[in-house]
Amino acid sequence: MSITTNTAITLARRPVGPPQADDFRYTQTEIGAVGDGEVLCRTVYLSLDPYMRGRMNEGPSYVPPAGLREVMPGGAVSQVVESRYESLASGDFVMGYTGWQEYSVSPGAHLRKLDPDVAPISTALGVLGMPGMTAYVGLDEIGQPAAGETLVVTAATGAVGSVVGQIGKIKGCRVVGIAGSEEKCRYAQEELGFDACVSYRQADFSDSLKEACPDGVDVYWENVGGASFFAALGLLNDHARIPLCGMISYYNLTELPQVPDPTPRILRTLLVRRVKLSGFIVFDHQAREQEFLREMGSWVRDNRVRYREDIVDGLDNAVDAFTGLLQGRNFGKQLIRVSPDPTRG
Amino acid sequence: MSITTNTAITLARRPVGPPQADDFRYTQTEIGAVGDGEVLCRTVYLSLDPYMRGRMNEGPSYVPPAGLREVMPGGAVSQVVESRYESLASGDFVMGYTGWQEYSVSPGAHLRKLDPDVAPISTALGVLGMPGMTAYVGLDEIGQPAAGETLVVTAATGAVGSVVGQIGKIKGCRVVGIAGSEEKCRYAQEELGFDACVSYRQADFSDSLKEACPDGVDVYWENVGGASFFAALGLLNDHARIPLCGMISYYNLTELPQVPDPTPRILRTLLVRRVKLSGFIVFDHQAREQEFLREMGSWVRDNRVRYREDIVDGLDNAVDAFTGLLQGRNFGKQLIRVSPDPTRG
Repeated sequence: MSITTNTAITLARRPVGPPQADDFRYTQTEIGAVGDGEVLCRTVYLSLDPYMRGRMNEGPSYVPPAGLREVMPGGAVSQVVESRYESLASGDFVMGYTGWQEYSVSPGAHLRKLDPDVAPISTALGVLGMPGMTAYVGLDEIGQPAAGETLVVTAATGAVGSVVGQIGKIKGCRVVGIAGSEEKCRYAQEELGFDACVSYRQADFSDSLKEACPDGVDVYWENVGGASFFAALGLLNDHARIPLCGMISYYNLTELPQVPDPTPRILRTLLVRRVKLSGFIVFDHQAREQEFLREMGSWVRDNRVRYREDIVDGLDNAVDAFTGLLQGRNFGKQLIRVSPDPTRG
Repeated sequence: MSITTNTAITLARRPVGPPQADDFRYTQTEIGAVGDGEVLCRTVYLSLDPYMRGRMNEGPSYVPPAGLREVMPGGAVSQVVESRYESLASGDFVMGYTGWQEYSVSPGAHLRKLDPDVAPISTALGVLGMPGMTAYVGLDEIGQPAAGETLVVTAATGAVGSVVGQIGKIKGCRVVGIAGSEEKCRYAQEELGFDACVSYRQADFSDSLKEACPDGVDVYWENVGGASFFAALGLLNDHARIPLCGMISYYNLTELPQVPDPTPRILRTLLVRRVKLSGFIVFDHQAREQEFLREMGSWVRDNRVRYREDIVDGLDNAVDAFTGLLQGRNFGKQLIRVSPDPTRG
């Protein structure tokens, strides 16, 4: 059977506030010929990540925005259907930025071959992929957690935060998570081994965080912004470090609330406490990928770093899962199973 | 003639907003006996610095606040009147944190002996003192300016800013100052050799700064906060650095204006641009003092780093000069000549 049609999700219009179903369009297209050096792949898992919301906006960022009427960009794990690239063969599994679609044709050189015997192929989008590497490199380069220090991590059960916290434990830190529910907090403590976890939805959030950090905060990993940022700000120790990785609480903002200007407080704290705050994007650090795969791979094999996946079946459900991700409805790394995973029974 | 009475300025109450004359008290005290290891000094120059405003407030900071009814703290250059410390003799010049007073008795070990033949003694409070070292170390550790980069410095003609900018020129940067008047801007360009200087009081400040930085901003040295911070934020290049040294525009704030929350914009810029922002206090870096004195000393001797002093005569005028300093009324390093300088004709 020759495959001729592809279903893809394109960006129909740029969202204002939370993305709506009408911001996306399901399109059917013909699959073109596979050119020299190219590979036709069937998507198995599509990764949904908070950064995608930023790419839906117009205007400059660290990468160009997603194009209107173009396939939504994103990382995916796929299986090769037809290859005209010498290092890949039909049946191989690969990871690549092939987008929100069932099938993709792309240069083989842009794909990374996966070995399903080393780790489940889905992990190439999570703990052994971009989110895991974000945690690994960002913590090492900016957070620099030392044994005995207190590390606070936001979005604590998410794809990045869960790895940040577990590396913190490996490094000998007291690790305190911030998450969006009691259930997530229980998971962070019982499964991930965090010392404490506080829900940002509870009324006494700021006081609870303070209680959980009796020795203050040495590393504050920022995925979220907003109330978490200000709660942590008041707890920072001298020479604290803030890896600034995301700010999911702002991504759907359409209007800025009127507030007493927080800038003096922010800058005063960072100055008086001699804090180092650094924006961080993993793409700047590709040179460390092999080292990351080696060390994180061994941690995952030894069960020192655990992961949880939130798998939704069907590309039809991608938009709904994505809007849920931006509200924290997911529990673990958000994946769409676009087609059956042949490596799982 | 034996000296028995001392005039000192004490903190009478903690200011609310801009310091008032009544926040200070001129007191006459007896000078006690000089103990073993101690030195009696006559103050020649008292240094006035913006950081002193912070020390007048209650509450935690990187050093304890100034005590009520105690002598206002501050650095000064003095001449030894009587010494019971073996490394200092009557007539020697010293720098120490001896406070706002005519005479001081302090441990000789707390004083640094100055050689008036190497540099004018007043420079131990400016270009060859704490402000100069702040510029030198902060730029090296955080700013890390590279040849061809653009460095923007606030309070550009002040004790710290003027040195930051001139080191930037030595390192081969395009240096753009931000200052409070046309006259200061002229001085920054004509005397200090800055490539451009913009007054934050002009109506089109933000646009003018942009025009002065056609290649964006790689290092933004923060002494001021407020409008300068936000103007620079919009111009930052990828991987820009922000040494956060002071925020004089906030020091007298009593009420925070209601504004559309700027936090998302601040954090987004720092993340997307991968900016490193670090609070910096020179006291953490005393180990580099000898290196600083050696290198800055040679730059000053070779006229590669120039300095300007704003000297006001008489301790009686210290309070007025201090309130002026917080409004930017000074032009150059603010000093009070408490007693005649025997080294100047």
